[in-house]
Amino acid sequence: MSELRGACIIGQSGGPTAVINASALGVIRTALDTDCITQVLGAAHGIKGVLDDKLYDMGKEDAAELDLLRYTPSSALGSCRYKLADPDVDDTDYKRILEIFQKHNVRYFFYNGGNDSMDTCNKISKYMQKMGYECRVMGVPKTIDNDLNGTDHCPGFASAAKFIATSCMEVWQDAHVYDTGMVSIVEIMGRHAGWLAGSAALATWAGFGPDLIYLPETDFDMDKFIADVKRIYDATGKCMVAVSEGIHYADGTFVSEAKTSATDGFGHAQLGGLAAMLAEIVKEKTGAKVRGIELSLLQRCGSHVGSKTDVDEAFMAGKAAVEAAVSGVTDKMVAFDCTRDGGYQCKTVLQPLDIVANIEKKVPRAWINAEGNGIEQPFIDYVLPLIQGELNPPKEHSLPRFAKLKKVFA
Amino acid sequence: MSELRGACIIGQSGGPTAVINASALGVIRTALDTDCITQVLGAAHGIKGVLDDKLYDMGKEDAAELDLLRYTPSSALGSCRYKLADPDVDDTDYKRILEIFQKHNVRYFFYNGGNDSMDTCNKISKYMQKMGYECRVMGVPKTIDNDLNGTDHCPGFASAAKFIATSCMEVWQDAHVYDTGMVSIVEIMGRHAGWLAGSAALATWAGFGPDLIYLPETDFDMDKFIADVKRIYDATGKCMVAVSEGIHYADGTFVSEAKTSATDGFGHAQLGGLAAMLAEIVKEKTGAKVRGIELSLLQRCGSHVGSKTDVDEAFMAGKAAVEAAVSGVTDKMVAFDCTRDGGYQCKTVLQPLDIVANIEKKVPRAWINAEGNGIEQPFIDYVLPLIQGELNPPKEHSLPRFAKLKKVFA
Repeated sequence: MSELRGACIIGQSGGPTAVINASALGVIRTALDTDCITQVLGAAHGIKGVLDDKLYDMGKEDAAELDLLRYTPSSALGSCRYKLADPDVDDTDYKRILEIFQKHNVRYFFYNGGNDSMDTCNKISKYMQKMGYECRVMGVPKTIDNDLNGTDHCPGFASAAKFIATSCMEVWQDAHVYDTGMVSIVEIMGRHAGWLAGSAALATWAGFGPDLIYLPETDFDMDKFIADVKRIYDATGKCMVAVSEGIHYADGTFVSEAKTSATDGFGHAQLGGLAAMLAEIVKEKTGAKVRGIELSLLQRCGSHVGSKTDVDEAFMAGKAAVEAAVSGVTDKMVAFDCTRDGGYQCKTVLQPLDIVANIEKKVPRAWINAEGNGIEQPFIDYVLPLIQGELNPPKEHSLPRFAKLKKVFA
Repeated sequence: MSELRGACIIGQSGGPTAVINASALGVIRTALDTDCITQVLGAAHGIKGVLDDKLYDMGKEDAAELDLLRYTPSSALGSCRYKLADPDVDDTDYKRILEIFQKHNVRYFFYNGGNDSMDTCNKISKYMQKMGYECRVMGVPKTIDNDLNGTDHCPGFASAAKFIATSCMEVWQDAHVYDTGMVSIVEIMGRHAGWLAGSAALATWAGFGPDLIYLPETDFDMDKFIADVKRIYDATGKCMVAVSEGIHYADGTFVSEAKTSATDGFGHAQLGGLAAMLAEIVKEKTGAKVRGIELSLLQRCGSHVGSKTDVDEAFMAGKAAVEAAVSGVTDKMVAFDCTRDGGYQCKTVLQPLDIVANIEKKVPRAWINAEGNGIEQPFIDYVLPLIQGELNPPKEHSLPRFAKLKKVFA
């Protein structure tokens, strides 16, 4: 393989995570140290920054400040949810991308995101090949939802899982101080896959966590749910519930959007989302004091309680993408291949970019209990190694010290 | 002062905090090491545990497990919101308390809580004196609300403030990743005093925090609020807001409970609380994408990001209460006297129990900006020393390792 000299672009796309910047740092740091990569460009707001020629010269950043990306949540370069057209239908964007690539002699393109980002990589790569412009394109995965196909898990998931488990343990403590009745309902992200809500089971496993957990992998039944809560509440005076935002009825309707007989009069006004709605229903049906808690954005940006394993692997994924591209690989997504027998081990592998297309990896049914209201041990065995290790992010005045980038345009 | 030999009771009362158990540990550990204290009894659910003769023998606990109380949020012994009657009107409870005190030869009573708890201490002490039963009674303060009179600050406040500031910094990161418009509204506890919501200003001070902060110390004006948000949103495409749950209109009506013209059609259905309601109003008035985030219970039990200063001081308050009582003092609340000039220093002082009665210490008006939508530097100077130091709580499998008490009844 002949050496390919030129600039590289790193872009970030989709929803933020606690570790997406660690992957970006893995790309940037490795690329800066690679001779044949002549310039490292950070795209402002992903592919939109390429289209707008808004590219930061990452070599102009202070090295120590750059290293703080390891501990800085969300997408430091800016993200987007821009979807490229089918180039056979409309190649306007692709022509523009090629123009920008030619202007900066971009020969490496690294895109850090989920399903749609891998699709973006794939389309760009195919177009460049068709036009005879040599450019190596690599996807670096991220998503708190952990639903990407072709990888053991996704960077970003474990830190969110750790935040969720830790918060559930703390809320459990809070919800058990009085000798009066109390039901608490914690709403967790995950529209189609229950990996995050299932991670609340780590809290239960550790001794202080939800009694009931509902994932979108099984159909939700409101009457069964109320009976489940009532049974535990009547027996113990307390009940803690974790629900995925994506729970749905058998007909596929999201519970958060449905108007059932139980929600009539509330269904139109779910300002506070699913947890608030379920809390109102449980209060009506049981008379209990109920608290609905939505973990909201906190769960995907909680780097202060991040998993060191997650951050290390996120960095490793970015680094592996650069090393593979420089060695001649293109059109691949970095993925994780892990073993858990005899100690957890994780190595990077390369998967075709289209392996993630149109597939959402769900929690196996066998990892959910038969009743569909709890988690089985294989889920714990899967997720526990991923949350290990404390990040101990640097602080200034005991507050997080996030990266402050100069963002000098190239 | 002659030595008073006998048992002691430690009780916890009111809403939980991240450090109330550190105060309990300060009492328990010191009492266990004090010769004239013959038995250390933990009241199950505060004064209710005394009335029910449900008293744990704290000497039967494993010492290492007990020490984990330092890192365990909420009230490990159980809490209550039980209010004793005026003894001149109904002395039933007092007779029962005296009976229990006599049964266990209780000569020291330590009560860990807020305003109502100090009142409980005061009433019990006066009754025991009237009945000629010698018992030394000491209050140990706690409240995340930081509204107790007679003390520089309250144990529990700083850890909640640190959680709030850290979370606001992380949410800020998350809310700024897209180049599309976004308004985020964070709802923070504090019904009558704005100490917690004001602490969100630490995030702004550190570079990533709310643009607007509204406390209950000033009257809220919905039109002014919408204009404030719109001005910042129009200029920058983003706006982050922190609001105290206790913001109210000029007539004293809580915004969360009021039906104004702006909330008509929403006001009756505030399932998700204030943040959700304000989010709906801002969305309607500006067309922006708006996210309402309620920090809920997370902010008062977030020991994983607790302040070491807060925990150390909470322990110190419990220890000081025992030492003072043993030396002959009674009818006092431990309070903090602090200096910030030339480095932060905090020492315990003793205040009369009734110093906190019927007074809620509010944020000084001069610490809030003239417009009533932001915080001035003196507030930062006040709170910053309190959040210093990392707790680094012990973990097991990278999850919090909370105390697991045996709770053996005496």
